[in-house]
Amino acid sequence: MAERQASEIRTVACIGAGVIGAGWAAYFLSRGLRVRAWDPAPDAEQKLRRVVDAAWPALTELGLAEGADPAAITLHPTVAEAVAGADFVQESAPEDLGLKRSLLAELAAATGPDVVVASSTSGFPMSDMATEATDPARLVVGHPFNPPYLIPLVEVVGGTATAPWAVSRAAEFYRHIGKSVIEMDQELPGFIANRLQEAIWREALHMVAAGEATPEEIDRSITDGPGLRWPVHGPCLTFHLAGGEGGMAHMLDHFGPSLKAPWTRLDAPELTSELRDDMVAGAEVSAGGRPMAELVAERDRAVIAIRRAVQTARAAGRS
Amino acid sequence: MAERQASEIRTVACIGAGVIGAGWAAYFLSRGLRVRAWDPAPDAEQKLRRVVDAAWPALTELGLAEGADPAAITLHPTVAEAVAGADFVQESAPEDLGLKRSLLAELAAATGPDVVVASSTSGFPMSDMATEATDPARLVVGHPFNPPYLIPLVEVVGGTATAPWAVSRAAEFYRHIGKSVIEMDQELPGFIANRLQEAIWREALHMVAAGEATPEEIDRSITDGPGLRWPVHGPCLTFHLAGGEGGMAHMLDHFGPSLKAPWTRLDAPELTSELRDDMVAGAEVSAGGRPMAELVAERDRAVIAIRRAVQTARAAGRS
Repeated sequence: MAERQASEIRTVACIGAGVIGAGWAAYFLSRGLRVRAWDPAPDAEQKLRRVVDAAWPALTELGLAEGADPAAITLHPTVAEAVAGADFVQESAPEDLGLKRSLLAELAAATGPDVVVASSTSGFPMSDMATEATDPARLVVGHPFNPPYLIPLVEVVGGTATAPWAVSRAAEFYRHIGKSVIEMDQELPGFIANRLQEAIWREALHMVAAGEATPEEIDRSITDGPGLRWPVHGPCLTFHLAGGEGGMAHMLDHFGPSLKAPWTRLDAPELTSELRDDMVAGAEVSAGGRPMAELVAERDRAVIAIRRAVQTARAAGRS
Repeated sequence: MAERQASEIRTVACIGAGVIGAGWAAYFLSRGLRVRAWDPAPDAEQKLRRVVDAAWPALTELGLAEGADPAAITLHPTVAEAVAGADFVQESAPEDLGLKRSLLAELAAATGPDVVVASSTSGFPMSDMATEATDPARLVVGHPFNPPYLIPLVEVVGGTATAPWAVSRAAEFYRHIGKSVIEMDQELPGFIANRLQEAIWREALHMVAAGEATPEEIDRSITDGPGLRWPVHGPCLTFHLAGGEGGMAHMLDHFGPSLKAPWTRLDAPELTSELRDDMVAGAEVSAGGRPMAELVAERDRAVIAIRRAVQTARAAGRS
């Protein structure tokens, strides 16, 4: 069949309209696409429109595509109706393997032979999710980061039964709408970024469990420390700079042995009720009593400003 | 003896004037302090003044203290002369335990009974470094992050022989000059932030060693993904937000078991020559052929802009 170009994708179906699905919908709308949504929750439409409305000022500030319209979204009572006429499907159902399996099978069956169905899963390999689909060739992972309307990264990877063209096409579509895409050639549990986040998270839990640091200290050690460098230079480039003129080679040749130092704990800590309570209380301290909506608004304002700041700083070096 | 207040510290001795020591000197100068430096390198003075000159526009942009003068720095031929008349000492010698031991012993002997001597060590506990000092009570760790003139975090902790007043005084001094201080009550190898960085770094090395991701992909997965959130919300608060209205409690109660998922490798990978070469080549890809000075300038511009962006976004929520 003739494969459609990414630029020919005009209508996206958003299947599941929770925080991630609705965030995707807002982003697609901002790129001038039409969105057809489905979600089984009784108040889904209200919630969906609330997320889109809340995201729109941020998206406007970042720059809307021509013809972008926050109202170009419709909610449909069935999956089949939502995907009718859609050129691309983004599935963002809850992270439940059984649910993902049946939903992806239904989506593969309900869509045409040139429509890619991407899953927002944050950890399941597509080979595990595609087992019930009679035609799994068009099923790919398209893993976003919260909030999908502000964080550019999308990790794209297929399963063993996915056709290579479907992976390429999803990657091409996301790039076309302005995402930063990592196209992986193998299935890796947790993909890339979540493995790195998870490594930090486990060490943080260990320190709290051992009474060595509080969640507030852990958060501040990142926000006022290495976190200030990470939006501009990732961990490898940061290490490269730490080596001075000798860069990465100097660091590895001189500090390689200290990699083996027992700084990082080996296993995940036991999630005792005490650790659970310490983490919950600590998060409340970090939140400073502010309601979730205020924290979300703060994050969104900051992410926009940080993205701008990094872009400007990078551009200044090239001029 | 009468302890001097942090605001009474007017002159700081910077012992060791490499990247970290010279960065500290630039910061102290920007806070209106006088600096007396010592470094055994033949071209130390030239390098020191170059770092101060390079940092000054950034420091000016962030706001200088009254009377701040980039020329208020003198280089001295011996440690004893450098610390003469200093109210506080910041030691930033190379990360070599034997060297730190003898230097800290010399510094403790050469300074008065109310002068705190802080070490910039990025990993040695003070109890291991203070073994040769006859008077170790005033020796503390004051661990900065590169570049010390831009990243606010300083981790402060004493050794078993350190007097509690010396730890408090160092913390108070750093806070007084605008640093974000974490005052630790126990010695932890790698302190807090480096343990978290190290956890990420090991997982990155594993992925490269296994051919699962390139250094460039790892860097981009952070800069275009979670790294955009970390300057505003650390890992615990990020997790709290991911839980929606249920916050941290919801996440731990529902996703606790997945902590045990085998996402993060247990041991440090073997640093084979192949892995070393892959990391070096990858850093060069991430650097895009740009010289180190350009990367450093890019980082500095970005960190200033990011700090501003985060401050503005936080302040907007409080107004």
